[in-house]
This record gives sequence, C-alpha cells and structure tokens, in this order.
Amino acid sequence: MPDIETFDNPHPGRDYLIRHVAPEFTSLCPKTQQPDFGTIEIEYVADALCIELKSLKFYLQSYRDVGVFYEDVVNRILDDLVAACHPRKMTVTGEFTARGGMHSVVTAEYTKT
Amino acid sequence: MPDIETFDNPHPGRDYLIRHVAPEFTSLCPKTQQPDFGTIEIEYVADALCIELKSLKFYLQSYRDVGVFYEDVVNRILDDLVAACHPRKMTVTGEFTARGGMHSVVTAEYTKT
Amino acid sequence: MPDIETFDNPHPGRDYLIRHVAPEFTSLCPKTQQPDFGTIEIEYVADALCIELKSLKFYLQSYRDVGVFYEDVVNRILDDLVAACHPRKMTVTGEFTARGGMHSVVTAEYTKT
Amino acid sequence: MPDIETFDNPHPGRDYLIRHVAPEFTSLCPKTQQPDFGTIEIEYVADALCIELKSLKFYLQSYRDVGVFYEDVVNRILDDLVAACHPRKMTVTGEFTARGGMHSVVTAEYTKT
Amino acid sequence: MPDIETFDNPHPGRDYLIRHVAPEFTSLCPKTQQPDFGTIEIEYVADALCIELKSLKFYLQSYRDVGVFYEDVVNRILDDLVAACHPRKMTVTGEFTARGGMHSVVTAEYTKT
Amino acid sequence: MPDIETFDNPHPGRDYLIRHVAPEFTSLCPKTQQPDFGTIEIEYVADALCIELKSLKFYLQSYRDVGVFYEDVVNRILDDLVAACHPRKMTVTGEFTARGGMHSVVTAEYTKT
Amino acid sequence: MPDIETFDNPHPGRDYLIRHVAPEFTSLCPKTQQPDFGTIEIEYVADALCIELKSLKFYLQSYRDVGVFYEDVVNRILDDLVAACHPRKMTVTGEFTARGGMHSVVTAEYTKT
Amino acid sequence: MPDIETFDNPHPGRDYLIRHVAPEFTSLCPKTQQPDFGTIEIEYVADALCIELKSLKFYLQSYRDVGVFYEDVVNRILDDLVAACHPRKMTVTGEFTARGGMHSVVTAEYTKT
Amino acid sequence: MPDIETFDNPHPGRDYLIRHVAPEFTSLCPKTQQPDFGTIEIEYVADALCIELKSLKFYLQSYRDVGVFYEDVVNRILDDLVAACHPRKMTVTGEFTARGGMHSVVTAEYTKT
Amino acid sequence: MPDIETFDNPHPGRDYLIRHVAPEFTSLCPKTQQPDFGTIEIEYVADALCIELKSLKFYLQSYRDVGVFYEDVVNRILDDLVAACHPRKMTVTGEFTARGGMHSVVTAEYTKT
Repeated sequence: MPDIETFDNPHPGRDYLIRHVAPEFTSLCPKTQQPDFGTIEIEYVADALCIELKSLKFYLQSYRDVGVFYEDVVNRILDDLVAACHPRKMTVTGEFTARGGMHSVVTAEYTKT
Repeated sequence: MPDIETFDNPHPGRDYLIRHVAPEFTSLCPKTQQPDFGTIEIEYVADALCIELKSLKFYLQSYRDVGVFYEDVVNRILDDLVAACHPRKMTVTGEFTARGGMHSVVTAEYTKT
Repeated sequence: MPDIETFDNPHPGRDYLIRHVAPEFTSLCPKTQQPDFGTIEIEYVADALCIELKSLKFYLQSYRDVGVFYEDVVNRILDDLVAACHPRKMTVTGEFTARGGMHSVVTAEYTKT
Repeated sequence: MPDIETFDNPHPGRDYLIRHVAPEFTSLCPKTQQPDFGTIEIEYVADALCIELKSLKFYLQSYRDVGVFYEDVVNRILDDLVAACHPRKMTVTGEFTARGGMHSVVTAEYTKT
Repeated sequence: MPDIETFDNPHPGRDYLIRHVAPEFTSLCPKTQQPDFGTIEIEYVADALCIELKSLKFYLQSYRDVGVFYEDVVNRILDDLVAACHPRKMTVTGEFTARGGMHSVVTAEYTKT
Repeated sequence: MPDIETFDNPHPGRDYLIRHVAPEFTSLCPKTQQPDFGTIEIEYVADALCIELKSLKFYLQSYRDVGVFYEDVVNRILDDLVAACHPRKMTVTGEFTARGGMHSVVTAEYTKT
Repeated sequence: MPDIETFDNPHPGRDYLIRHVAPEFTSLCPKTQQPDFGTIEIEYVADALCIELKSLKFYLQSYRDVGVFYEDVVNRILDDLVAACHPRKMTVTGEFTARGGMHSVVTAEYTKT
Repeated sequence: MPDIETFDNPHPGRDYLIRHVAPEFTSLCPKTQQPDFGTIEIEYVADALCIELKSLKFYLQSYRDVGVFYEDVVNRILDDLVAACHPRKMTVTGEFTARGGMHSVVTAEYTKT
Repeated sequence: MPDIETFDNPHPGRDYLIRHVAPEFTSLCPKTQQPDFGTIEIEYVADALCIELKSLKFYLQSYRDVGVFYEDVVNRILDDLVAACHPRKMTVTGEFTARGGMHSVVTAEYTKT
Repeated sequence: MPDIETFDNPHPGRDYLIRHVAPEFTSLCPKTQQPDFGTIEIEYVADALCIELKSLKFYLQSYRDVGVFYEDVVNRILDDLVAACHPRKMTVTGEFTARGGMHSVVTAEYTKT
C-alpha cells in the first residue's frame, strides 16, 4: 500500500469539515475475482494533520488488484486514514454498483476519544 | 424459502451501517394473484454475522410466486433476516409501484434489546 | 362518502410505518366550482387495523364533485381515516397544483393519546 | 360541450407555432367509470384564428364526466379544435397516467389541404 | 399465451400514433433461469383494430415463467402483436436492467407492405 | 399595499402546517431600479384565521414597482402577514435569482409568544 | 421602447449560431392587467451586426408594464430584433408559466430572403 | 484478449437494433499508467450472429491493465466486435470521465458494404 | 484584498438567515499554479451589519490569481467576513470541482460567543 | 497563446467523432474586465492529426486574462484548432453563464472543402 501523506492543518483551532468524494474506486470480488466498482466518500474533522489529495488518490488506486468484501474495504480505508492523520472524527462511505440486481452501501465512523 | 447465508463480520468491534437495495422485487397480490413490483431496502448494523449477498438475492426471489400483502411482506423479510444474522439493528423498507393510481411504502425496524 | 374498509394488522406487535401516495386527487374549489388537483399522502402507524387500499381509492375519488378548501380537505381526510382505523399515529399531506401562480401544501397530524 | 372561442391571429402573414400544455386533464374510463388522468398538449400553426385560452380550459374540463377511450378522446379534441379555428396544421397529444402498470400516449395530427 | 384482444379503431381514417409503456416486464434467463426485468414499449399506427389494454397486460405477464433471450423476446412480442391487430406500422422496444454491469436495449420495427 | 384578507380556520383545534409557494415574485433593486425576481415561500400554523389566497397574490404583486433589498422584503412580508392573521408560527423564505453571478436566500421566522 | 443596440459581427464570413436565453421576462395580460411571466429565447445567425446584450436586456424589460398576448409579444420581439440587426436567420421562442392550469409556448421564425 | 462468443441471430430476417451499455469500463492512460474510466455503448444490427453478453463482459474487462488512448480504444473495440459477429451495422461510443477538468466522448461507426 | 462593505441590518431585532451562493469562484492550486474552480456558499445571521453584495463579489473575485489550498481558502473567507460584519453566526462552504477524479467540500462555522 | 499539440490519428481510414467538453472555461468581459465563465465543447472528425488533451487544456486556460466577447472567442477557438489539426469537420460551442439575467450560447462550425 502506498503511504498516505499529510500536511499541517492550516486552521487547527477550529473544528471544520473536509469531504473528499472519489467516484472512480475499483477493487476485485474476493470470491470471483470479478471487478467491483463504487464511490468512496471520506468526511473528517482534522486535528493537527490534513490528508494530502494526490497520495489519497494513489492509496485508493492501490485496491485495483485487491480482492476484498464491501464490508471489509470500507473499514480498512477508515483504519488506514485514521492511522495516517489522527482526525478528531472521520466517516467513510462506500457506495457500490449493482451486482445480481442489488447495490450496496457501507458506512463506518470513527471518533477520537 | 431458501436459506439466508451469513459470514463472519470482519469488523465486529465497530458499529457500522450496511445497506442493500434490491429494486427487482416481485411478489403476487394475495387477492387477485396479479404481480406486484417494488424495491426492498435493507439497512443493518451487524453483530457477529453479515448477510451473504447471493443468498439474499435468492431469498428475495423466492417471493416471486407468493401471494402476500405489502404490510405483511416487509415485516416477514425483517423477521427472517433478523433470525438469520441477529443484527444489532435493522430496518427493512418496501417501496411498491402504483396500483389503482396509488403507490405505497412500508418501513419496519428492529433493535436488539 | 363510501366506507373506508380495514383489515387486521398482520404485525400489531411492532410499530411500523405505512405510507400511501395518491397523485390523482381532484376536488372542486368551493368558491368558483373550478376543479382543483393535487397529491394526497397518508402515512400512519397502524394499531389493530390497516386501511384497505381499494376502499381508500374510492374514498379519495368521492371528493371529485365536492367543493372544499385545501385547509379543510386535508383535515377532513385525516379525521375520516383516524375514525376508520384508529391508528397509533397518522399524517396527511395535500400538495395542490398552482392556482394564480401559487401552489399550496397542507399537512395535518394525529397522535393517539 | 362548451364553445371553443377564438380571436383574430395578430400575425397571420407568418407561419408560427403555438403550443398549449394542459396537465390537469381528467375523464372517465368508458368501461369501469373510473377516473382517468393525463396531460393534453396542443400545438398548431394558426391561420386566421387563434384559440382563446380560457374557453380552451373550459372545453377540456367538459370531459370530466365523460366516458371515453384514450384513442378516441385525442382524436375528438383534434376534430373539435380544427373545426373551431381552422388551423394550417395541428397536433394533439394525450399522455395518460399508468393503469394496470402501463401508461399510454396517443398523438394525432391534422394538416390543412 | 393468453389472447391479445382488440377493438375497432375509432378513427381509422387518420394515421395516428398509439404508445403503451409497460415498465413491469419480467421473464427468465434461458441459461440460468434467473429472473430478468425490463420495460416494454409498444408504439403503433392502428389500421382497423386497436389493442385492448387489459389483454395486453395479461399477454405481457405471460412471460413471467418463460425463459427467453432479450433479442428473441422483443421480436416475438412484435410478431404476436402484429398478428393480433395488423397495424400499419409498429415498433417494440425492450429496455432491460443491468446484468453483469451492462444493460441492454433491443428495438424491432414492422411496416405493413 | 392591498389588504391581506383572511377566513376562519376550519380546524382551529389542531396545529397543522399550511404552505404557499409563489414563484412569480418581482420587485425592484432600490439602488439601480433594475427588476429583481424570486420565489416567496410562506409556511405557517394558523390560529383563528387563515390567509385568503387571492388577496395574498395581490399583496405579493404589489411589490412589482417597489424598490426594496432582499433582506428587507422578506422581513416586511413576514411582519405584514403576522399582523393580518396572527398565526401561532410563521416562516417566510425568499429565494432570489442570480445577480452578478450570485444568488441569495433569506429566511425569517415568527413564533407567537 | 428603448433602442436595441448592435455591434459589428466579428466573424461575418461564417454562418454561426448565437442564442440568448432570458428567463426573467414579465409583461401584463391585456384582458386582466395581471402579470405574466416567461422565458424568451432568441437564436440567430448574424449578418453584419450582432445584438448588444445590455440593450437587449433593457428592451425586454420594457414590456414590464405592457399589456400584450403571448401570440403577439413573440412576433413583436422577432420583428423588432430583425429590424435592429438584419440577421440571416432568427427564431424567437416564448415559454410562459401556467395560467388556469395550462402553460403555453410560442415560436416564430424569420429567414432573410 | 478473451474470445468474443456469438450465438445465432434468432430473427435474421428482420433488421433490428441491439444496444449494450457497459458503464464499468476501465483501462490505463498509455502516458501516465493512471487508470481511466468510462462507459462503452455498443449498438448494432445483427446479421447471422449476435454477441453473447458474458463474453462481451470479459472482453471489455480485458482492457483493465492495457494502456490505450481514448481515440484508439473505441476503434479497436469496434474492429474486434465487427470481426467477431460481422454485423450489418455497428456503432461504438466511449464516454470517458473528466481528466484535467475536461471529459471526452469518441464515437465510431461501421456499415457492411 | 478589496474591502467587504456592509450596510445596516434593516431588522436587527430578529434572528434571520441570509445565504449567498457564488458558483463562479476560481483560485489557483498553490502547488501547480493550475486554476481551481468551485462554489462558495455563505450563510449567516446578521447582527448590526449585513454584507453588501457587490463588494462580496469583488472580494471573492480577488482570489482569481491567488494560490491557496481548499482547506485554507474556506477558513480565510470565513475569517474575513466575520471581521467585516461581526455576525451572530456564519457558515462558509466551498464545493470544488474534481481534480484527479476526486472532488472536495470544505465547511467551516463561526458562532459569536 | 501556448501551442496546441497533436498526435497521429490512430485510425485515419475511418471518419469517427471526437468530443472534448471543458466546463471550466473563464475569460474576461472586454468592456468591464469582469470574469466570464462557461463551458467549451469541441467536436471534430480528425484527418491525419488528433488534438493532444493536455495542450488543449493549457490553450483554453490561456484565455483566463484575455478580454473577449462570446461571439468572438468561440470563432477564435475554432480557427486556432482548425489551424492546429486540419480536421475534416469541427464544431465549437460555448455555453456561458448568466449575465444580467440572460445566458448565451454560441456555436460555430468548420468543414474541410
């Protein structure tokens, strides 16, 4: 996995929301190795660090050849991003395109305690 | 009815939302035997088990020849899914297409106590 | 007015939402006798009884030749439906098409006490 | 049927298009006496006469208690309007709301010969 | 297959367009026996006969348990409707929901010669 | 300013919402005398009196030649309507079309104390 | 009526399309003096002259207090603009908001001969 | 590249349109090796052979790791499909998502001569 | 930076919401000097002063040649507007167009204490 | 102005359509020096050369500080692109955002003779 780079939060004294929406996510189904497609949405309140956009793009692209379930990938992205930037709060949502006539959405949240 | 299969929740330590949307639901009107059509939406917080998608598809398809009222089918799906995966929380919504110039929506919720 | 028929709630042990949307409502303006058009939306939590859809359609059609104000008709529908099925909770909304360049929405609620 | 009134075309020297769209059309099904709903769209090139809007509204409202098939009503409206204003060209379209899960559109044209 | 009933064209002296849109079509995949879903759109210029709507609904419903390819079913519906009402012209379109991440549309036309 | 007429609330025993949406509002910019355009939305819970629609239309039209700022006109409409019908609660919103590449929305509320 | 100003067509050697869309048009109904609202769309191929936008705005605003029928105003705008810039071709369309439940569209064209 | 399989056209006596829309296409930019995303739309009139859907899916997926320009990939898909099923006519369109603030569409056609 | 002008709040006795939406914002990426584009939305409750619209437009335009990160520019606009009009409450949101296949939204709030 | 680079058309033997849509165009009003915003759409049939996307982006960005009328800029872009790649056919369309309550569209075409 490529590193998720960060930069210093330019306004750390204020709680404010940052959201990045990545509609070009693709990974593989771990059972059939068929490609899955979806949109990953990341919303967070930064603490000392903000996520650098280009490295986030490369991080998400690194799932292109990885077999992973919907329920798993959303939680793994959340864990990796929390580890990289230690936010005050973060939500990751994955909206995946239809498979077998059904589409799925998974949402996981983290709050610093 | 086919079995609803499950798999181990990969992140049981976190409460996170899973939603499956199935817009190709069809059953029969118990009075006229005419086909009904609708979208079934299932949203839940898994506990130890997640619902396996393929078996969910076959479970919903099993209503194709069943005569059942809107109010009944949404509650029955909720009961069956709760029995299969014992979620922390689950909501089932059925949005049915127009009959006689009116369309209907039924929503039922379950919370583990 | 035709009777609003009911049937036994198949899942009375659970509070769940039922919504019926009727976009083909028409009545008359009590001042000008000109036709009014709108959408009536009924959302309720059933207690012992559910509203039967066909009789609901005939009930709403019975306003076709009745002169009635927007503010009045929404409350009258709420009163009649509450009297027929004794719900735990009910909301009736009427969204009416534009007259004189303005359109109107009226919403009334009932909660069993 | 109320009269369709006309007024003198203010620019008879030019072929130009006039379209009136009436989304609040309602008539009765000739078989079941149940109300039908739809949108009537009238597009024409006037010759000496234009259709007066208020009388057009009353003309279309006069179908409120008339039992008539979709295929018939569109042709009858076309015939009546052609007789009233003798246009160079006219098209009448009726788009009707769903019945039995199907909706219908009927389009008829007239050209002065 | 149920009969497709017809009624006499009320305006046979004029070429006019009739369109019926049936968004609740379902059949089976002939390979997997899995249900397919789609919208069937029928547009025609009647000659002596119009298609009766209720029998059209029952005709389309009769594919519910039939295994048939997209390319085949659209042509078969066209053939059956042409045989039933001998139109001057007819187009049948089937728009089918996504399978394997792709959706399909098939359009076939007939012109009386 | 024309009078805002009222009629007796037909269901004063129940708190219910009435909303009127007027998308054809126009006034003048007090600086440039250029026309402004917008939508005025009025939502209220009536007490003893309801606002009569036709007089509301004339009241709103009376701003056609009045120079007034966005922030001012929304509050003035709220004040005038409250004075006319003494509602339990009222919200007035003005959504104005773009000027200089920016559009504006102003919302003011009143609650009877 | 204010003058419609023009400027020299910067590319007179090429036939190219220019379209201006003015959604804030308002005039008065000549019968009732009530305000009418609509969108005026002007599409033309310039010859030697292009229409200056600011003067076009003032020209269209000059109808604010003028009583004029839909069929008339579209043709008058076309005549005035043709007289001002002598285009190779011009189309004027007026789309007016609903009155009495019907909305109207009028389209007139000019071609230099 | 995987084979594109075909099956016998069930209605070869009639020219009819078949369209497949694949919104989950992804390949690589040949310059930067960054992933590209788009929708491939294939419309054709079959002659003796129809394209089998599952093999079409695998064929399109085979571009996942291929570096290819937009202009090139659409023409290559057209060439490969024409070679596989010898259609009477075929159009391939690729709509690609934005890169550098611009998105692109490429359309290529083939007609049997 | 140009001055943000203000005018006296015409209704300071009431807490009411003012929102300005500016979809034509552009600045530069501080890393690549490439232009960024977005919509800036400002919502506030005025205290003694309201923001004058024309000066707001010039203030936002002044970022046209400024290199600034998304996270930074939203907070800077909030700081500058708060300093200019001392509102009771203000929210600034920037929605930026896609870069590298991802788009971003930043939201910052201020409340007078 | 930066150079518009080209690359060899990979399929010169076939007439096929290439379209690039650039929604982030901005230039200056030559009268007021105020920024204008719009979408530039370029559609062409390549001959020997295709337009390279990155250089097209820089070419369009070069208008950022240029004062130019809508009617002029669309024709200048067409002239520059034709000079750079000598297409068989090309259309350039500029859709500009509203100024003074009106928005404008300009479309110019070139065909190799």
